[in-house]
Amino acid sequence: MGNISGAVKQCLSYEYLIREQPWLSDLICQHQGSGRSKLPECVKIVEVGPRDGLQNEKEFIPTRTKIEFIDMLSETGLTVIEATSFVSSKWVPQVAAGATDVAVFGAASETFSRKNINCSIEESMWRFEEVVKSAKGANIPVRGYVSCVLGCPYEKHTEPGKVAEVAKRLFSMGCYEISLGDTTGVGTPGAMSKMLERVLKEVPCEALAVHCHDTYGQALANILTALQMGISVVDSSVAGLGGCPYAEGASGNVATEDVVYMLSGLGITTGVDLNKVMEAGNFISTALNRKTNSKVAQACYKP
Amino acid sequence: MGNISGAVKQCLSYEYLIREQPWLSDLICQHQGSGRSKLPECVKIVEVGPRDGLQNEKEFIPTRTKIEFIDMLSETGLTVIEATSFVSSKWVPQVAAGATDVAVFGAASETFSRKNINCSIEESMWRFEEVVKSAKGANIPVRGYVSCVLGCPYEKHTEPGKVAEVAKRLFSMGCYEISLGDTTGVGTPGAMSKMLERVLKEVPCEALAVHCHDTYGQALANILTALQMGISVVDSSVAGLGGCPYAEGASGNVATEDVVYMLSGLGITTGVDLNKVMEAGNFISTALNRKTNSKVAQACYKP
Repeated sequence: MGNISGAVKQCLSYEYLIREQPWLSDLICQHQGSGRSKLPECVKIVEVGPRDGLQNEKEFIPTRTKIEFIDMLSETGLTVIEATSFVSSKWVPQVAAGATDVAVFGAASETFSRKNINCSIEESMWRFEEVVKSAKGANIPVRGYVSCVLGCPYEKHTEPGKVAEVAKRLFSMGCYEISLGDTTGVGTPGAMSKMLERVLKEVPCEALAVHCHDTYGQALANILTALQMGISVVDSSVAGLGGCPYAEGASGNVATEDVVYMLSGLGITTGVDLNKVMEAGNFISTALNRKTNSKVAQACYKP
Repeated sequence: MGNISGAVKQCLSYEYLIREQPWLSDLICQHQGSGRSKLPECVKIVEVGPRDGLQNEKEFIPTRTKIEFIDMLSETGLTVIEATSFVSSKWVPQVAAGATDVAVFGAASETFSRKNINCSIEESMWRFEEVVKSAKGANIPVRGYVSCVLGCPYEKHTEPGKVAEVAKRLFSMGCYEISLGDTTGVGTPGAMSKMLERVLKEVPCEALAVHCHDTYGQALANILTALQMGISVVDSSVAGLGGCPYAEGASGNVATEDVVYMLSGLGITTGVDLNKVMEAGNFISTALNRKTNSKVAQACYKP
């Protein structure tokens, strides 16, 4: 509690200073511009390739290949690997790689919710509450997802307030982590910072993850923005697995390789071995008979 | 001068405050983390597709096509379009689209300098001084380029101090703008901020541009970092024209479309019409018989 009251004290003093010395506000902006933003020291990467990635690939993957792929990923230092497809808003415990985990998939867009999980946002929240209640009874952690946080294929614009509302509901019902998904990849660092600013008023930083698609090439810039705002959990997909169902020929999830490369260059610890991730990416890209979507792998992977 | 002395006064006061109230330093870091970095209101985009882009494409482009391409670009709102190939460190005035402009191409890596322009960095600086002197006599502005600012294909690591030294030389001899090039695209936002922090000690922000290659997918994140540090000139190439001569199959320049999209989402004015740039990108990609490297165009361009 000492820290919290310290922080409150600091904020009060800061407000006081700004009021008394208005130039300080500009000065802080200048110093913000110095590039020395406070970034997290460690980042947890949640590998969604085997789940979100493969379910959006056209090619069928035999179970044997999928298991070998997940085995390879488990050797990379990645600590969270989403392995199985979930059925939306139903009670489907995920048992893979020794972990037992459940996820619920909400949306910040009413139309997307109805088209994707066949119910309104409000209805989905009632169902999720049941799921979380049962899971908590069995001591199983539940991860919450919010789709369309920076835009929607049907409604275009998404209100940051709506994202905050849904994220808060999921957090309040007991989800340990809320993954904020830019499902269509339309978001820019501008949209990301506005959205996060709003959500951070309702959900603590430590309980948030970002899930960026690279459809418009903005994923790494958006992730960097989230890191600068204190987010330290990033979803990504090895080899950029997964297309974009809303734009023919466009890419899907941001590639784990490219995220790990950026984080490493920022001096942020991930515990992930880039070479081993590239090996797993090469394995699954070969199995899918397609080129990797990771630019890092394209530039420097030698089989 | 009023502004300058005002700024000095603010800095003195700031130093005083930090000394008197050490917690303020942390507080400023917290506020830096809020994503509300001060970004430039306007950004000038320097289109390098017809020059840097086309000279690294394998396909031959007939002059007629090239002229039509440049004509299309001149309708997009892009104010600076590099049109002709330059011969390194020689006096070659560029006369295109009514503009007369000269550029000199230096490097921050000794080996790269010797391999690329056949002389040491020191020798190149002497030659450039002659070029700049003649150009200034004829009232022709000279743009300076520094290659390998975040890494070198031969020496790997580049010292930020070396970049600062070369940039300062070019600025001191009279180049109006120094474009800092991540030639191999290996840089991350971590390397970019360290390099710029050093260079900004020698060259004013207003005289600097960044020239990012997307070989490792880091270009937009690197550009965002530069913007946050006050840089407001960005080089880019429509359709991401230009491959990477140092990594087979990897992409080259960051795509103008993707830069414009990001800047627009950040609320930064560029004066560039994204749709018209995508049209020009589609025209040249068709002429080159290859897919555009712009993810934005891949996701949303409809011919």
